Amino acid sequence: MIGPALIVLFGLGTPLAASQTPSVPPSDRYAATARLIREEGLRSEKAFAMLADLVRTAGPRLPGSPVAAKAVDHVQSVMKDLGLETWLEPTRVQHWVRGEESAKIIAGAGERETDLTISALGGSGPTPASGISARVIEVASFEELERRKDEVRGSIVFFNRPMDRTLIEPFRAYGEAAPFRAQGPSRAARLGAAAALVRSLTFRLDDFPHTGMVDYDPAVPKIPSAAISTEDAEVLSSRLKTRPDLSVRLRLGCANLEPVMTANVVGQIRGTEKPDEVVLLGGHLDSWDLAVGAHDDGAGCIQAVEALRLILKSGIKPRRTIRAVMFMNEEFGSSGGRDYAADPRRKAEKHIVAMESDRGGYGPLYAAVGGSPEARRKFAAFEPLFQELGLSGIRPGGGGSDVGPIIAAGAVPMGFVPASAAYFDVHHSGHDILDNVHPRELEMGAIIFALLAVIAAEEGI
Amino acid sequence: MIGPALIVLFGLGTPLAASQTPSVPPSDRYAATARLIREEGLRSEKAFAMLADLVRTAGPRLPGSPVAAKAVDHVQSVMKDLGLETWLEPTRVQHWVRGEESAKIIAGAGERETDLTISALGGSGPTPASGISARVIEVASFEELERRKDEVRGSIVFFNRPMDRTLIEPFRAYGEAAPFRAQGPSRAARLGAAAALVRSLTFRLDDFPHTGMVDYDPAVPKIPSAAISTEDAEVLSSRLKTRPDLSVRLRLGCANLEPVMTANVVGQIRGTEKPDEVVLLGGHLDSWDLAVGAHDDGAGCIQAVEALRLILKSGIKPRRTIRAVMFMNEEFGSSGGRDYAADPRRKAEKHIVAMESDRGGYGPLYAAVGGSPEARRKFAAFEPLFQELGLSGIRPGGGGSDVGPIIAAGAVPMGFVPASAAYFDVHHSGHDILDNVHPRELEMGAIIFALLAVIAAEEGI
Repeated sequence: MIGPALIVLFGLGTPLAASQTPSVPPSDRYAATARLIREEGLRSEKAFAMLADLVRTAGPRLPGSPVAAKAVDHVQSVMKDLGLETWLEPTRVQHWVRGEESAKIIAGAGERETDLTISALGGSGPTPASGISARVIEVASFEELERRKDEVRGSIVFFNRPMDRTLIEPFRAYGEAAPFRAQGPSRAARLGAAAALVRSLTFRLDDFPHTGMVDYDPAVPKIPSAAISTEDAEVLSSRLKTRPDLSVRLRLGCANLEPVMTANVVGQIRGTEKPDEVVLLGGHLDSWDLAVGAHDDGAGCIQAVEALRLILKSGIKPRRTIRAVMFMNEEFGSSGGRDYAADPRRKAEKHIVAMESDRGGYGPLYAAVGGSPEARRKFAAFEPLFQELGLSGIRPGGGGSDVGPIIAAGAVPMGFVPASAAYFDVHHSGHDILDNVHPRELEMGAIIFALLAVIAAEEGI
Repeated sequence: MIGPALIVLFGLGTPLAASQTPSVPPSDRYAATARLIREEGLRSEKAFAMLADLVRTAGPRLPGSPVAAKAVDHVQSVMKDLGLETWLEPTRVQHWVRGEESAKIIAGAGERETDLTISALGGSGPTPASGISARVIEVASFEELERRKDEVRGSIVFFNRPMDRTLIEPFRAYGEAAPFRAQGPSRAARLGAAAALVRSLTFRLDDFPHTGMVDYDPAVPKIPSAAISTEDAEVLSSRLKTRPDLSVRLRLGCANLEPVMTANVVGQIRGTEKPDEVVLLGGHLDSWDLAVGAHDDGAGCIQAVEALRLILKSGIKPRRTIRAVMFMNEEFGSSGGRDYAADPRRKAEKHIVAMESDRGGYGPLYAAVGGSPEARRKFAAFEPLFQELGLSGIRPGGGGSDVGPIIAAGAVPMGFVPASAAYFDVHHSGHDILDNVHPRELEMGAIIFALLAVIAAEEGI
């Protein structure tokens, strides 16, 4: 059923379902709704205010932490205040804590010790309290690691592979360099390494380490592992050129504690005609601990909540259910996304569309629709609406780690792709603060989410 | 003639003009060049380093000021160091200087005086040293000004028209509100106003005034005029609601001095076959004085210079001349652009293409080609190159205030359109600093400039 927005458009006195007016071009049917959503969104910029509230109430939201639990409560109360139907769904998460940490180049003859800026990688265990002091073996590839395997035993392996700045797509550059963080420590441990240092995954040369999860191989020791800032990666590499036998002392106080039961937060507008058909909007509520996770992924969570607020405000009573899910534990393996898909409640539901925003709260470049050619063709008819919102149009795409299992179960992936030139400046680092999010850019993502959701909920797939 | 870049592409031992190989798809002919330009640009990010040099050497560059003169010398020496042919062309500019300035709401009974954050508008004359103390008449439109014309004599007219945040296109919102800054003061003066305050042109609510030029009508007194920060516009408006007769004391120490002879800075790569046919890349070297003009328009100037550096570095020896012009005095009426077009040197030249970057150094969204349908069709064949650089494609557009006269004389407008959600946050204000420019986004503009210029210089129009 269409609310007041489309009544204005058609000038009718009674509600009229969009699908009952085949003579109107498809995109025209939603022109007035798109306008209401845009005007309310851009005028109020509520997404930014909500994000500010979230990160001030619940800053660094490591899975299993008390702050993450506070974020669950906070977001659920925001959803309640908006008038959404809301509940929690359980998920068990890895509970990792950071401790004191430091690294320094041990002085050679006539030298002073040099501090290195590092941060433990997620999942890393601690060093002994006195630290690990060992020779550093620098490698830029797994091939180089294999070539130098005879030197690795007892050493600190230093993966110094920069993200390739010459690539246009930052996520591709990240994808090429991320295996050294995710798999590097266990590859080094297999050869007997005592610890691992990994160059931070960013295009910038600065003194901020970028952390992230290690995908430890259970078959080998989980050696202590840390990200080193790009500036100090350069320092260390340069010192190794003149003194190849130099040693580093690494101290990490991090630890893996017992897993914790926590929750995904769900809020929804129930569909008026087909309530068991669900259009899902998602973000992940957990974050890294080096800042407040404003872009990653406070932005995505808040865009989903704001999209629902915009839909309510526009007066739409969607035919199908539109649901926002704040997934827990994306940063430690996406158990929230898997548990959501596996929850018994899903048996009585059919997710027709799943969207996720987890590429930063930057200005959207284009809307994305994946799935079958038919789904893409159906949405192509609505492209002018997105072009009027300043996007280049609709392109194939969508998906994400938390909605992956729901998409695997048949939901059509949708979403939008934001500008990402600056994303890896902040990703998993101390730079991921509210000041680096722009209110208007953030809001545009919520607006695109809202419009995609309304169309999907009204039209079906 | 095509340099080493395309020799690599074609695998030939001798240079080969692109236009001699009709069997190769047009965009393929430049694929290797595009790659060289992209790789050198993104790897080095020299545009940002050059911009940092410029704004540190010559910060706020008001036309006619000693700092602007220093900028002329600096940019010319950068061009010389790159090996460009370079010279200056004279232009006469308005020389306006800011002085001490302040404004306060004069206390009513039992109140304290309230300071207002203001900055004189460009071209404004001073108040008497004791200031102008007068009642404030707030209006949101010229119609409202006319309705209240009987109250205006001797007053301070306060134009409080916000930029419309609900519009998708920030330049449209600016265009709708800018007449209150440009024409408002003279419209008020015609009715006998003593001074004018104009709400700053930004979507943000903050305490930074945004200045800009007043287009004073010579037929009426040039009344003192200042921009007021958006926060203080709200304060003043709210105070006027409870005390409609309140007065403000405005003190401006600005002055218009004698015009100054200064220069546009020109640097070029001379064409090998048709040196008198010119592809022009432009930005304006002058800026406002409230910050260093990093986005407006240090960014555009440096993108033009960096584009020429990238072309040199890629080994291209272009058939036609590719020229960068740093125009002077855009902010006070674009005399530099007009004098460039009218310079006698132009008689021996034909400008086939003119591009200008003056919308901030943000990430380019699409390339723009204007002019005849034939010109647009010709460039459409090269669209895949721009899509590979992450742009949505080529759309109609181009132009700008400095290249306007050259386009009027027959040059085809081209360029690119950057993301602009944040542009009016910084425009003409204290926020226009280097920290608000992103190195990768800035560089992408230079890369697009370079590729458009190479294609235009090789292919003609």
